[in-house]
Amino acid sequence: MPEVTARFAEIVGTANLLSGTEVNEDYGHDECLTCPPRKPASVAKPGTAAEVAALLSTATELGVPVTARGSGSGLSGAARPREDGLLISFERMNAVLEIDTANQVAVVQPGVTLAELDERTAGTGLAYTVYPGELSASVGGNVGTNAGGMRAVKYGVTRNNVLGLEAVLPSGEIIRTGGKNAKISSGYDLTQLIIGSEGTLALVTEVTVKLHPRLAHAATLLAPFTDLDEVMRAVPRILAAGLTPNILEYIDNLTMAAITYTEQLSLGVPDEIRDRTQAYLVVGLENRDGERLDGDVERAGELLGELGATDVYVLDGGSARKLIEAREKAFWTAKAAGADDVVDVVVPRSEMPGFLARARELATAAGAGVVGCGHAGDGNVHLGVFCPDPDKRHRLLHEIFAAGMAAGGAISGEHGIGQAKKDHFLALEDPAKLALLRRLKQAFDPAGILNPGVLFD
Amino acid sequence: MPEVTARFAEIVGTANLLSGTEVNEDYGHDECLTCPPRKPASVAKPGTAAEVAALLSTATELGVPVTARGSGSGLSGAARPREDGLLISFERMNAVLEIDTANQVAVVQPGVTLAELDERTAGTGLAYTVYPGELSASVGGNVGTNAGGMRAVKYGVTRNNVLGLEAVLPSGEIIRTGGKNAKISSGYDLTQLIIGSEGTLALVTEVTVKLHPRLAHAATLLAPFTDLDEVMRAVPRILAAGLTPNILEYIDNLTMAAITYTEQLSLGVPDEIRDRTQAYLVVGLENRDGERLDGDVERAGELLGELGATDVYVLDGGSARKLIEAREKAFWTAKAAGADDVVDVVVPRSEMPGFLARARELATAAGAGVVGCGHAGDGNVHLGVFCPDPDKRHRLLHEIFAAGMAAGGAISGEHGIGQAKKDHFLALEDPAKLALLRRLKQAFDPAGILNPGVLFD
Repeated sequence: MPEVTARFAEIVGTANLLSGTEVNEDYGHDECLTCPPRKPASVAKPGTAAEVAALLSTATELGVPVTARGSGSGLSGAARPREDGLLISFERMNAVLEIDTANQVAVVQPGVTLAELDERTAGTGLAYTVYPGELSASVGGNVGTNAGGMRAVKYGVTRNNVLGLEAVLPSGEIIRTGGKNAKISSGYDLTQLIIGSEGTLALVTEVTVKLHPRLAHAATLLAPFTDLDEVMRAVPRILAAGLTPNILEYIDNLTMAAITYTEQLSLGVPDEIRDRTQAYLVVGLENRDGERLDGDVERAGELLGELGATDVYVLDGGSARKLIEAREKAFWTAKAAGADDVVDVVVPRSEMPGFLARARELATAAGAGVVGCGHAGDGNVHLGVFCPDPDKRHRLLHEIFAAGMAAGGAISGEHGIGQAKKDHFLALEDPAKLALLRRLKQAFDPAGILNPGVLFD
Repeated sequence: MPEVTARFAEIVGTANLLSGTEVNEDYGHDECLTCPPRKPASVAKPGTAAEVAALLSTATELGVPVTARGSGSGLSGAARPREDGLLISFERMNAVLEIDTANQVAVVQPGVTLAELDERTAGTGLAYTVYPGELSASVGGNVGTNAGGMRAVKYGVTRNNVLGLEAVLPSGEIIRTGGKNAKISSGYDLTQLIIGSEGTLALVTEVTVKLHPRLAHAATLLAPFTDLDEVMRAVPRILAAGLTPNILEYIDNLTMAAITYTEQLSLGVPDEIRDRTQAYLVVGLENRDGERLDGDVERAGELLGELGATDVYVLDGGSARKLIEAREKAFWTAKAAGADDVVDVVVPRSEMPGFLARARELATAAGAGVVGCGHAGDGNVHLGVFCPDPDKRHRLLHEIFAAGMAAGGAISGEHGIGQAKKDHFLALEDPAKLALLRRLKQAFDPAGILNPGVLFD
């Protein structure tokens, strides 16, 4: 065992330190489509924040690059380790420490999965309302990328649902930020700064998340439109009506065809209507009261009709669940269909039609294809990009990202920049801002050990 | 005119640069009770971000301390200038640039007041839902302190309602952060870092805020309790019931007596009940639908009865408005009553009874008094502190803040640290965290020109 590895093994115990052939291939990648696996020199599985602290101070001392890993469900390569580096896997720090119903918060270790947190809160009448699609995702990973998902239109993204952190600085110092309080105005907000920093500033060892009342009644409406622009124009009207949908998704006809085929899903849309449909709007409603929900469903149905839907289907519970699950698996469908990349540009929602039209134009000009779905209420466009040639694809993505930014948006709404989109980020972002981000990185991590190659070169 | 002043006058024009006797006394202070006015060497009233940029780069070059001022309604002295410094007043940058109903955002200059923003959105069916009490407050000032207020229990604080900023760095670089997007995951969140930084990192020249549907129907319930602990125990139950109150305030009997007396307010509470009351809970409900509101009022009334309220009064519109206004003016009432300081410690809401008991014990032991009210749903306790001796008061505040932090809370929930609470902040906060905050400050403001003496020494 090399000396460096031995130092790390001393901290976590040899049983929790893998190196060489012990390192499973899974540790070498996340779900990024364009980041080939890279086997790390060693994998540490700490059990406590103190162990994480010792690992980081040792890595700083020795100049060893460190990458953190939750469940490895990220899409931008932020959990892809360096070959000369240490991967810290949070799989053993997977305890739900507290469900505090009085303060409506849960305190969890970073390795807790969303599925487990959902199960643990189920009996309390409360729920953690961030559902980025992949329930095997870890809370720690969600904090790293500021994960979003379908419910964000009502409940916000990870950033809006995390109140406090315990985090370890590269120096080995352990700090606590925020807490169980809904608000705080006492110094710079380190919680918010660490959220979405993709493992480049500090490693999170405990997360305090907000819980919301778990509402008993839910319904899902499916509205086909003959024109994608009409879908987009309907979105602000639905939001302004005060129906507070918890899901407001668009799915283009190709994506809908793919996910219904893959999942063997029948939604009861007649062929005649389906053939004229360019995109669907999926509207989720929920209420603590069944009668109120019925009223909202009726109102939403009327409104969708007024806004140009060719018909409105209130899905039965089974179909609704399957459709939402299928939508959550849209990434896997795109991957199975041979997509060469997936992107999640975010724009102001009024800019979605223009941005989508521009993205299609750019793709056509490049001899490529883009299809997709997205969080219509959030302006978060998920595109599967079909363009096998890496250089062509790089140029196309550059143009698509530039178009999103020109529309007032950003490269990523919820997947993060990671390694996959870093070149574009560095090329397109304001140099003054990039210089500031680098100074902030320096303030946390002067030795540059945390996730080098992610966000920055 | 000294040379330094002349340099600033060149940038904004002599008509917009005050110095010497031209500087009105108002520019020397905010509403902090313990920060005596200090006249700045000069006051600049820029009209554009470019002028702010030139002022800051010049100040950096010359080493002149710079303090930003909105409406001067802050309570911690963050807008109190230095005698050797430049005060930048945003009074001329007071335009509502855009009300964008499709994206449900407003884009405003920092000098816009909450009253004006409310007026400008009134006809659109949307509203900016941060009401920190003082409607003359500016949006820029609210960003500086991360202002909260009564509606935060439903809508969150400033931090949760600002999507994007234009900000000027001390170097004179102008950056844009966030935008009209509800989410973004593309590099560190500078928007959130600047919010609540009390003018120490960058000066904000444009703010993009979220708007919410303006709900047509509202009701206010007043529930007297014989025991403050019961009030506090009721709070999580009301929140868990899914009634989503937009106001959830407690007011102790002394504070209620003072505000009803000052405002000549009659709430219809019989003497017999009033005399047994230790504290009141005020519950605000709102709905887009009048019938649903009635249902919620009924449910809330039942629930309050079950939770120990001696009675429940549904206030008529006039009384309700007056009570809320009186509560918003509680600071002025405390000031008029001779309070020597006001604090706004925040704790997890379940810790409020214990914290309040401890604060009263500490006050009694010091021969002082504390009375108050607060945002019960947020754990944000507003205390008027009656303790004329400055040294005694300093020790008492230190103990009160320490008790709040020991309960998992923070020194300030929404007023900020400013100059008033800086000593306590520096004495009580984790040194590792303070060192990190200082490094972040350095990353923004290496010359240390922005609000020296605020947050740090």
